[in-house]
Amino acid sequence: MNKGSDAPVFILDRPQMGENIGAAARVMGNFGLTRLRLVAPRDGWPNETAITMAVGSPVLDTLEIFDTLDEAVADLSVTYATTARPRGMVKPVLTGREAMREARGHLGAGASVGILFGGERAGLPNEAIVRSNAILTLPVEPGFASLNLAMAVGVLAHEWRAGDPVPAEFRPLEDRASQEELTLMYEHFETELDRAGFFFPPEKTPLMIQNLRNIFARGGLTSQEVRTFRGAIKALTIGRGRHRVVRED
Amino acid sequence: MNKGSDAPVFILDRPQMGENIGAAARVMGNFGLTRLRLVAPRDGWPNETAITMAVGSPVLDTLEIFDTLDEAVADLSVTYATTARPRGMVKPVLTGREAMREARGHLGAGASVGILFGGERAGLPNEAIVRSNAILTLPVEPGFASLNLAMAVGVLAHEWRAGDPVPAEFRPLEDRASQEELTLMYEHFETELDRAGFFFPPEKTPLMIQNLRNIFARGGLTSQEVRTFRGAIKALTIGRGRHRVVRED
Repeated sequence: MNKGSDAPVFILDRPQMGENIGAAARVMGNFGLTRLRLVAPRDGWPNETAITMAVGSPVLDTLEIFDTLDEAVADLSVTYATTARPRGMVKPVLTGREAMREARGHLGAGASVGILFGGERAGLPNEAIVRSNAILTLPVEPGFASLNLAMAVGVLAHEWRAGDPVPAEFRPLEDRASQEELTLMYEHFETELDRAGFFFPPEKTPLMIQNLRNIFARGGLTSQEVRTFRGAIKALTIGRGRHRVVRED
Repeated sequence: MNKGSDAPVFILDRPQMGENIGAAARVMGNFGLTRLRLVAPRDGWPNETAITMAVGSPVLDTLEIFDTLDEAVADLSVTYATTARPRGMVKPVLTGREAMREARGHLGAGASVGILFGGERAGLPNEAIVRSNAILTLPVEPGFASLNLAMAVGVLAHEWRAGDPVPAEFRPLEDRASQEELTLMYEHFETELDRAGFFFPPEKTPLMIQNLRNIFARGGLTSQEVRTFRGAIKALTIGRGRHRVVRED
């Protein structure tokens, strides 16, 4: 997959803190985004703090530095301007989720897409908002709306991928038990419960069986778990039929 | 809106860096989440670095500190364990988006929900995964999968707000059992299995317990089901201690 052209470019306009640049590079790498551009970073480049915080993110290999925002967006065709403050502009306002969904459509149609992030102190200048296709704002608390810059990058980097399935190495339930194995386990369990006098009064037996079976049906047991559980039943009951009561109440 | 009860609790298990605790508190506040719990933070509490990084987050006002993860989850009935590594357990694996969507359903049905995050060095211990209803993992790059702790919190705090709730008619399980009720049930079950000689060979006992507990943790039992199941254990074992073996092999 050519990530260079089918994913959005993230642009940090005049970022101040190396910690945030590095954390942004790290989290973009986590979510498979590789195109990060910095516009006039306060402390220049390279920035040791940023490099340390990026912990080897591949994003640093392709990082681009620009003097002006104009240059940084020159080759992009669709841009979203992130802001936590209304700017009094007549412009579409999208959430991160809406913007990323829309961006996928643009990218699929061959457009190049950029997400613009302002510096820590004042956010994006109005002219960056003006030049963008839409405002992107996150559903934050009005009274505590100011996100850390790297966190805003991280939230949108995740949003880019959030609809993907879990990674392949997280194989969910395998070796699911068959209905027959489950039926035999249920019957084993219920037979022993019946012998133990558990099902009382008799008219409630069907409901009790239903409730017990539901526990296991929801659990989605594997064949190994069925064997384990049947072993547990056997362990709890072994010898019961061959015992006699020594003490009588 | 009463955010104290209709939103998930985020639990950081043995976090190390004050920077991450503070950044987590800040971003939770950004997205209107207020319930943060710390289990045995390495540098104790209060932590000046964390407080500085939180920049006045209201989350600090209600922060709770616990000595153990057991205590931190005792009042919760549904928990998700975040991990970037497959643990070889038979358990549902959900993305952040899927888990938050599911969590809304549980919360809507009156359950209390927790999201567990491991410390920076090693992530969550296996027993935290075992006791959880599901694994939560993010769609990261396999070769660069390790998210910063605060970033993981931020991504999920945003995800909490970013998605639409499932329709109200999809009510999942109500009257969820608490972790404490489950712990007592597990101990009851395992005590009886131990008496029955089920745990053999001894070195496999922890794995056998893990496997058994996973069955129930996945199932997400109600309080009524816990009572039913404990009644079943009792039925299978009653009198065993008062019997003697008549036949010997």
